[in-house]
Amino acid sequence: MLDNYKIFVESLNLILNNEVDDLNVSKPKEMYEPMGYIIGLGGKRVRPLLTLISCDLFDIPIQNASQSAIAVEFFHNFSLIHDDILDKAPLRRGKITVHEKWNNDIAILSGDGMMAKAFYVLCKSNQNHIGDLLRLFSKTAIEVCEGQQYDMNFESQNNVSVSEYIHMITNKTAVLLGCSLQMGAICANANTENQLHIYEFGKNIGIAFQLLDDVLDVYANDEKFGKQVGGDIISNKKTFLLLKAFELSSLEQKAQLNNLLKLSDDVTKVKLVTAIFNDLNIKQIATEEANKYTSLALTHLEKIKANDAKKESLKQFAFQLLNRNI
Amino acid sequence: MLDNYKIFVESLNLILNNEVDDLNVSKPKEMYEPMGYIIGLGGKRVRPLLTLISCDLFDIPIQNASQSAIAVEFFHNFSLIHDDILDKAPLRRGKITVHEKWNNDIAILSGDGMMAKAFYVLCKSNQNHIGDLLRLFSKTAIEVCEGQQYDMNFESQNNVSVSEYIHMITNKTAVLLGCSLQMGAICANANTENQLHIYEFGKNIGIAFQLLDDVLDVYANDEKFGKQVGGDIISNKKTFLLLKAFELSSLEQKAQLNNLLKLSDDVTKVKLVTAIFNDLNIKQIATEEANKYTSLALTHLEKIKANDAKKESLKQFAFQLLNRNI
Repeated sequence: MLDNYKIFVESLNLILNNEVDDLNVSKPKEMYEPMGYIIGLGGKRVRPLLTLISCDLFDIPIQNASQSAIAVEFFHNFSLIHDDILDKAPLRRGKITVHEKWNNDIAILSGDGMMAKAFYVLCKSNQNHIGDLLRLFSKTAIEVCEGQQYDMNFESQNNVSVSEYIHMITNKTAVLLGCSLQMGAICANANTENQLHIYEFGKNIGIAFQLLDDVLDVYANDEKFGKQVGGDIISNKKTFLLLKAFELSSLEQKAQLNNLLKLSDDVTKVKLVTAIFNDLNIKQIATEEANKYTSLALTHLEKIKANDAKKESLKQFAFQLLNRNI
Repeated sequence: MLDNYKIFVESLNLILNNEVDDLNVSKPKEMYEPMGYIIGLGGKRVRPLLTLISCDLFDIPIQNASQSAIAVEFFHNFSLIHDDILDKAPLRRGKITVHEKWNNDIAILSGDGMMAKAFYVLCKSNQNHIGDLLRLFSKTAIEVCEGQQYDMNFESQNNVSVSEYIHMITNKTAVLLGCSLQMGAICANANTENQLHIYEFGKNIGIAFQLLDDVLDVYANDEKFGKQVGGDIISNKKTFLLLKAFELSSLEQKAQLNNLLKLSDDVTKVKLVTAIFNDLNIKQIATEEANKYTSLALTHLEKIKANDAKKESLKQFAFQLLNRNI
């Protein structure tokens, strides 16, 4: 279903495989091997693909955006290495995480090196674009770190509001999607207005994506989702669903929810929390909230002055992303 | 003795105090407070000062280099935060380290944010310089990470050679001094040749500085040095002195040295290792090695086409740095 973009994906794989080959022979190997490892794990490569798609949208050959594509993928993987340390995550893309395969020190340092490299590859871009690229990319990098800090804060913070949650996912996840698209647009000499709209398109799709991810965690078909259904409920994660449920629940339901959070029987916990979500119509509310952001994204896409067929392809790609069909 | 540069130091303090004020009110405070804290600890501010001095050397107002000065100081402090985690260091500049005052997670994330901010402030530079600044700065950032990895490797690596050691300190310490100076030169529109020479001047002074630091650790007057004399010997640190001693020692002395490394009585250990260093004339060899790099640095300084009086001031500043008079 990525047929429209098949050639971009192939080009991207070629570029990233070259980078992995370089990383795997760079020294000191203790720092570079983990970088090659995590990039080599693959994943959907959504961010660098968006960069190339955006460049093409403005009718400029995607080669002009390849350095930016590498930069966003490197930065994303830096954030994965460090987030996995903070989250004490054992697995990433079904494989052992860097800090588990090596150790925390190696993970810290190879993450640092990865971020530095993300900026280094950027400087090989067209000289006329470097200032704009650096401004956007470094600002986004800061925001992603802020988002991760808010996410960490929420673990021990009581009374997280829904709007604080939206702010967190915007920073942690959505802005990098907007940035990936805008970088492609910069490389394609798109004007400021087009840049703004494609950024907002990506950012809002990113928010919708994260909200639907919260829904899927509770309501997904187990096999299709590929993760344990109810995982967020079991770990008391402050998702949109839980926060909205607290916002809308009666005093009695609040007390019930608070008690359920302490429950050690996972199966019962998932069942009873889901029952409260159902009572409060949370699935529909969350889906509608996601749709609101998707609509906003599409409004921005419409305003972009570019080839209509290409805009339509990007729209379909975004829908596939939201429906997890890619 | 910083009289020549007093006005630069004042300007720098003003700039950095402003940054600290900004950091201290930025949110999320869990990420920004540690940044404000470590920058606020002060230190000699050698790197950003070099950036301003270099800009002035080419007769351009130092305000043109202020963003670069902030960038190098931010990057340096990022590396301190993360290095202190890796080294499990309890103190930095006589104050409790970030990971001890807060925790490792906070230290990882505020370090990440600090590196991202270092690149962000850079993008506020003159647009004509951004490409060159980013290329140099990001390359240096990667090298500093590599240097830190080599330093970590050496802890468990047998048979570290003297040349591997020089390579490590070049990356970990020296290149950032060269980079700080070259960034000032870039901001002053210096030509490529002048940029190269001022970079090499800084890099070689940096290597000499580190070698003399190794000498001071063993032979310094306790009070002047401000650190425990013999600390490197006690911790079996693979310094130039120890590596050179292994290189030059007889089989018998090698066996002696290897036994001494295992000694738990610190006072005796320092005394006996120092005795072997003395037998092998290590202090003089190390000092001569440092002088070699200082001479090389001065050769590069001579080749810079700039105001002679200003070059002389920079030379004096470097000597003060090497003799720890600042």
